[in-house]
Amino acid sequence: MKEKLYIIKIGGNVIDSPKALDRFLSDFSAIKGKKILVHGGGKIATELGKKLGIETKMVEGRRITDAATIDLVTMTYAGLINKKMVAALQSKNCNAIGFSGADGNLIRAVKRPVKTIDYGFVGDIEDGSINSTLVVSLLGQEVMPVVCPITHDGNGNLLNTNADTIAAVLAVAMASSYETRLFYCFEKNGVLRDVNDDSSFIPELSQNHYEEMKGKKQIYEGMIPKLDNAFLTVSKGVHSVYICNAFHLSSIVNNAQPIGTRIS
Amino acid sequence: MKEKLYIIKIGGNVIDSPKALDRFLSDFSAIKGKKILVHGGGKIATELGKKLGIETKMVEGRRITDAATIDLVTMTYAGLINKKMVAALQSKNCNAIGFSGADGNLIRAVKRPVKTIDYGFVGDIEDGSINSTLVVSLLGQEVMPVVCPITHDGNGNLLNTNADTIAAVLAVAMASSYETRLFYCFEKNGVLRDVNDDSSFIPELSQNHYEEMKGKKQIYEGMIPKLDNAFLTVSKGVHSVYICNAFHLSSIVNNAQPIGTRIS
Repeated sequence: MKEKLYIIKIGGNVIDSPKALDRFLSDFSAIKGKKILVHGGGKIATELGKKLGIETKMVEGRRITDAATIDLVTMTYAGLINKKMVAALQSKNCNAIGFSGADGNLIRAVKRPVKTIDYGFVGDIEDGSINSTLVVSLLGQEVMPVVCPITHDGNGNLLNTNADTIAAVLAVAMASSYETRLFYCFEKNGVLRDVNDDSSFIPELSQNHYEEMKGKKQIYEGMIPKLDNAFLTVSKGVHSVYICNAFHLSSIVNNAQPIGTRIS
Repeated sequence: MKEKLYIIKIGGNVIDSPKALDRFLSDFSAIKGKKILVHGGGKIATELGKKLGIETKMVEGRRITDAATIDLVTMTYAGLINKKMVAALQSKNCNAIGFSGADGNLIRAVKRPVKTIDYGFVGDIEDGSINSTLVVSLLGQEVMPVVCPITHDGNGNLLNTNADTIAAVLAVAMASSYETRLFYCFEKNGVLRDVNDDSSFIPELSQNHYEEMKGKKQIYEGMIPKLDNAFLTVSKGVHSVYICNAFHLSSIVNNAQPIGTRIS
């Protein structure tokens, strides 16, 4: 039987609140066994960009990453956010190690080709772009990776990359070595029937049910890439995927209170 | 016979010039065998601080690191500078991995006690504060650490730490596993008899000679902590220490042109 591995993606809203983040990191530290944390960036980069006069340019809900912006997100995600999390985890007896995708060639990406829109320094990743040997070696030494959403292209360029996708591709890469459980943690209780009612979470979501809800526009926009990634990973050998509230992570891991949506 | 390990400290002036840095990183990549890069910060943090309205406060030549400043140097050193170097090294076929002292508990420091001056988030390190097990494991996998001058105290605080000292303490920690050679690289040709004449470098400097020169005020101020660190490491089992021009590193490593000062 394979050993369990928890891969936990934490979103922007929890990162933006120091108090919420500290509580979440305590819960993460308390999980027994092997674990990987993947974090997004949140509003901190946008706020810092304002101070530096770097304008946030969004096209169709996506950030355009020019040369000044990739420097900004590298500083913020790989520097400030990642190192503060790692230092906090160290103080909670979790031997964390921070990663961008460039470190140890952890995640190689392809700079998104210019079609109608030039997204700039944005990286797309595919299965097979993970240095899983290094991750297995570190986990074997009880060192837990904390991964920020910056990758590299092997030609010296750092690339801004979606953190949900990083978590999914990591989970697929690790599935041959571990019984891998992927958690997308955010501020809601899971996939909700009614976005305004946190108690309306769907305990188990099948691909058919998802397609049906998507057809009826019952799934809101930000959730679609998360769920598309989730279903893809389950089909590629990941043991289970949950979408849940960051503060229900411990309950789900310990099978105490299954509040959240399990993807099946 | 122990395997060789090169620990190379690169200073601010080379980092401040993208062209010089690229050339140096090519030379670093080309060194055969195990190696660790330790880098300083240089003027980038000060420039960024100006834009963010974070004033640089110096007392007796040392930076006072308040809460805003530790965020600034963490972003700059651990984020921007470290990740750009790692991505560049990856493109030059060197499997580099970036580190702050918090990552993998690599370097634990003590927040400098307040006596007459409160230096803020500044860390002092001692021998024995290095997680050498992790370094040995990574080097064994041909993964080369790139270390920025940020450490942690184990209580969740990141600390600004002198990069020369980090290089020295790392060298001492690795000396039991490797035949460790420490290089302090900067823009001059070594310890100079005449600071304005780059050809006046002293090929070999003994402790007695150093003390004599120091007594006669022939050693300029910035060199003293480098040399104090250098002599200390030699006395603690480090095979050799060189103070040299960043662009003579290859020559010295390959025993071609011994331009630079060897500490003996």
